[in-house]
Amino acid sequence: MKEKLTIVKVGGAVVEDELQLSQLLCDFAAIEGRKVLVHGGGRKATKMAERLGIETKMVNGRRITDAAMLEVVTMVYGGLVNKNLVARLQANGVNAIGLTGADANVIRSHKRPPVVVKQVVDGSPVDTPVDFGFVGDVDAANGEMLSHLIEAGIVPVVAPLTHDGEGHILNTNADTMASETAKALARIYDVTLIFSFEKKGVLRNPDDDDSVIPTITHADFERYKADGTISGGMLPKIENALSAVDAGVSKVIITLATAIDGKQGTVITT
Amino acid sequence: MKEKLTIVKVGGAVVEDELQLSQLLCDFAAIEGRKVLVHGGGRKATKMAERLGIETKMVNGRRITDAAMLEVVTMVYGGLVNKNLVARLQANGVNAIGLTGADANVIRSHKRPPVVVKQVVDGSPVDTPVDFGFVGDVDAANGEMLSHLIEAGIVPVVAPLTHDGEGHILNTNADTMASETAKALARIYDVTLIFSFEKKGVLRNPDDDDSVIPTITHADFERYKADGTISGGMLPKIENALSAVDAGVSKVIITLATAIDGKQGTVITT
Repeated sequence: MKEKLTIVKVGGAVVEDELQLSQLLCDFAAIEGRKVLVHGGGRKATKMAERLGIETKMVNGRRITDAAMLEVVTMVYGGLVNKNLVARLQANGVNAIGLTGADANVIRSHKRPPVVVKQVVDGSPVDTPVDFGFVGDVDAANGEMLSHLIEAGIVPVVAPLTHDGEGHILNTNADTMASETAKALARIYDVTLIFSFEKKGVLRNPDDDDSVIPTITHADFERYKADGTISGGMLPKIENALSAVDAGVSKVIITLATAIDGKQGTVITT
Repeated sequence: MKEKLTIVKVGGAVVEDELQLSQLLCDFAAIEGRKVLVHGGGRKATKMAERLGIETKMVNGRRITDAAMLEVVTMVYGGLVNKNLVARLQANGVNAIGLTGADANVIRSHKRPPVVVKQVVDGSPVDTPVDFGFVGDVDAANGEMLSHLIEAGIVPVVAPLTHDGEGHILNTNADTMASETAKALARIYDVTLIFSFEKKGVLRNPDDDDSVIPTITHADFERYKADGTISGGMLPKIENALSAVDAGVSKVIITLATAIDGKQGTVITT
């Protein structure tokens, strides 16, 4: 029987909010057994870019990462956010180690080629070519190396940065980091993946915080997508969650950052 | 018999200079067997602080680290410099992992209390109380944890940041990081510690780049200090080197960043 392992993904909004973050770190420390934390930090990166006079450009909620922005996200995700999380987890009795994909070669990616994206121009969706810049699409996470660290009692704290094996750091979506890490570790462990954020789960009605959809299957997702119940930034999150389930992750939950015990939220399942 | 291990410390001036850095990473990749890289980054931190409108204050060559500067060094040392070094070493075939002292609890420190420092005022040395701020004086490096990583084929790349075990990152001198890491690993390995920088070694005459002093013992150091041959920033570097020798590090060399094979430079010995 495989050992249990819990992966918690915490988003940028929670990292920004001291009260929510303290609670999350305390709850994460209380999770028994093997575990991994994956974090974002987009809001802090946007603020730091602003202080440096660097404009943040987003397309469909995803950051365009030019050379100047790559410096910012490398500093903010890999340094400021990651190292403070690690130090605070150490104070909570968790033997955390901060990792980007480059560290011990745990997550390799390739630079995303320019892609065609539907953007709304004058009210109509138009196919537009977009170069996201120094953004990495994940090739593979190194489950064996992560497992080697975990079996030494270490808790990986993963920043949303990868490397291409040719000396370059690349910016990578934190939800993708979490699902790719979960997929790689699912070959070794019985993995529960928890996407925590500022809502109670996937909402049927975005204006009603209590309208949590308890379960979403592939079929449900297609239906909700078609009828517009689920849209925007929630689409790639659920796609990441479903791909993790398909790859053998035992349980995927989308839930509130103050409810990472897995007892609430939306369960994503086949 | 203990296995050989080489620790190379590379300073901020080399990290800044693309040509010297490429050469150093290539030479470091060529070192056979177990190894560790320790880096600085002070010049990059000073530049980033300037871009953010944060004033850099130094006392006797050491940075005053207030809360704003702590953010800068955490970003620059732990993120920008460390992660780029790691990605580039990976491209050079070195399975590097970036570490601050907080990561896997490898180097613990305590915040330095205000100290009395001799500062020159109107041409005379005056005892002045100085609070260096969020600066950590090292308590101990965790040789067992570092060794566990090293024995897995991983090469630690250490940033000059530590933690106090209470959730705080602290700024720590990179030479001290190197000598403390060397001391802890000397209990397990036959350690050679190489301080690389922009000079060929410790110079008898600062204006003559070829006036390298081949060997410095404790007695030599006291003499050179008294007669003014060695002064300024070279004093703590040699103190760090001598303390490493005293603690069982087999060989300590201060040398040019393009000569880290240990065949040139100044040998520090008992």
